[in-house]
Amino acid sequence: MDVGAGTGILSAFCAQAGARLVYAIEASNLATKVALDLIEDNGLTDIVKVIHSQIEEFVLPSSAEKVDIIVSEWMGFYLLHEGMLDSVLFARDNFLKPNGLLFPSECTIYVAPCSVPSLYDYWQNVDGVNMEKFASKLRLQKSTRPEITQLTSNDLLHEGIVFHWMSLLDVSTQELDEIRFKEVVATQKPGKHQGFCIWFEVRFPGEESVVLSTSPPAPETHWKQCVVVLPEESCETLDEKSPVAFQILMKRSANDARKYNLEVELLDPNVEEHPVPCSCHMTKCILTEAHLKMMDTT
Amino acid sequence: MDVGAGTGILSAFCAQAGARLVYAIEASNLATKVALDLIEDNGLTDIVKVIHSQIEEFVLPSSAEKVDIIVSEWMGFYLLHEGMLDSVLFARDNFLKPNGLLFPSECTIYVAPCSVPSLYDYWQNVDGVNMEKFASKLRLQKSTRPEITQLTSNDLLHEGIVFHWMSLLDVSTQELDEIRFKEVVATQKPGKHQGFCIWFEVRFPGEESVVLSTSPPAPETHWKQCVVVLPEESCETLDEKSPVAFQILMKRSANDARKYNLEVELLDPNVEEHPVPCSCHMTKCILTEAHLKMMDTT
Repeated sequence: MDVGAGTGILSAFCAQAGARLVYAIEASNLATKVALDLIEDNGLTDIVKVIHSQIEEFVLPSSAEKVDIIVSEWMGFYLLHEGMLDSVLFARDNFLKPNGLLFPSECTIYVAPCSVPSLYDYWQNVDGVNMEKFASKLRLQKSTRPEITQLTSNDLLHEGIVFHWMSLLDVSTQELDEIRFKEVVATQKPGKHQGFCIWFEVRFPGEESVVLSTSPPAPETHWKQCVVVLPEESCETLDEKSPVAFQILMKRSANDARKYNLEVELLDPNVEEHPVPCSCHMTKCILTEAHLKMMDTT
Repeated sequence: MDVGAGTGILSAFCAQAGARLVYAIEASNLATKVALDLIEDNGLTDIVKVIHSQIEEFVLPSSAEKVDIIVSEWMGFYLLHEGMLDSVLFARDNFLKPNGLLFPSECTIYVAPCSVPSLYDYWQNVDGVNMEKFASKLRLQKSTRPEITQLTSNDLLHEGIVFHWMSLLDVSTQELDEIRFKEVVATQKPGKHQGFCIWFEVRFPGEESVVLSTSPPAPETHWKQCVVVLPEESCETLDEKSPVAFQILMKRSANDARKYNLEVELLDPNVEEHPVPCSCHMTKCILTEAHLKMMDTT
């Protein structure tokens, strides 16, 4: 079953990969027409059944068995925003055989403190002209919503920590309503802390695990990354091993279940509990780390 | 004088390049504020006077002389669409000294028959799936307006011929109302003729001529190129030296003087007069060319 089949291209891939029968479920009238053409033109009408329906209203033919595999390209910005995972979970609960597979099957959301040169440093010297005040206006305009933009590895102050992980086989819709994460992370290189970069990876089942990553070093995708830009007064130039304490709240919008609100709060690393071990340069963490290492060698 | 100064960055460049006095004329309230900040932050308030005004309403200070140079970044898509050349010509007629300079000073618009793989060939085999009908829907959706897109040199069937040239020193607003061009051009390589690619170059005065080109081989700009896509039934696979006869009409919109309508008409190369010499493979052109060559050698 292909949930939200769109043009039908994933259903065609399934048929080409050997599926005996594919239900291509698509709610949009226009996309359904496109999918019908595509399946016909590729000689796949015997295998792929294009169905114009909301997944929530779809009913399997009375004699039909449940499906072995659900495929779907449901991912939104920073995984959940404007995505359609709810529909995939509905399909899983209603149409997937016990021990059936989901493609993709696992998702991980990462976060890392970062620099945002396109909103900060670039404007300090534009071919010899200082445009800092313009940049500040730009940032103000952008401060109410996260910025979907492509960063480079170089902009990251940390390779990224897992902010959320889920297996699509057992996650519930309710668990998607609110994702909270609080952490102290030690920067892995010095740099200007101007925001938090959020990206995701999805993993596909199989012997050789296939991963689609939207991280800064991975090839660019239309998802790019999601950057929450810090207000000017919160930006700091950090040394390597500086502790950055923060909390993220990713919460479903009350008005539109497919949209999420993101809240990032900077916390005081002197007050927050650090992970054990923590590679930051604060004395208690250096001592703990030394202690752990000593215990390790004895 | 900087016409439509925007952020004021060109005015700052002028000051840094040695201008004694710069009028930075900007009609937008918001941009004027940005420009005022930029000029102040770069310590240029003595040189650059930021003026919040339509150029048409601007009056030089009573004791002031006219300006030596007008700079402006006025260019729109395919040079004229959504540009503001009219304002620059108004400034030229009212505020430029005799023998004053315009930056840029000359413009050339080019056209070339081309392939448009992003709307045609790409869709024939998308990782093993034929999406031709989808592509055809895409093209239909795009057929009412030219496509602003980046082509590669490889997509061009001809390096480009000059469709229009003008010197900003003497062109009139009326001459911008309608630009017509009719030509027979011989393809310089074989390929699928699926559209016409239009781009422009502007030239700056000076001993070493500086050119800003928006051609496919030049570094990409936000202007990209303008592609008029042919309807399916007019597309043809052409040999090298095939004659392509066409007419282009670029006409100011009746509703909005800053917008242009583009009309391209394919003509019959058997009927239209070819240039002399013409490098196409039609017998009369081969004979003419041979004749000219013979006369050349005798």
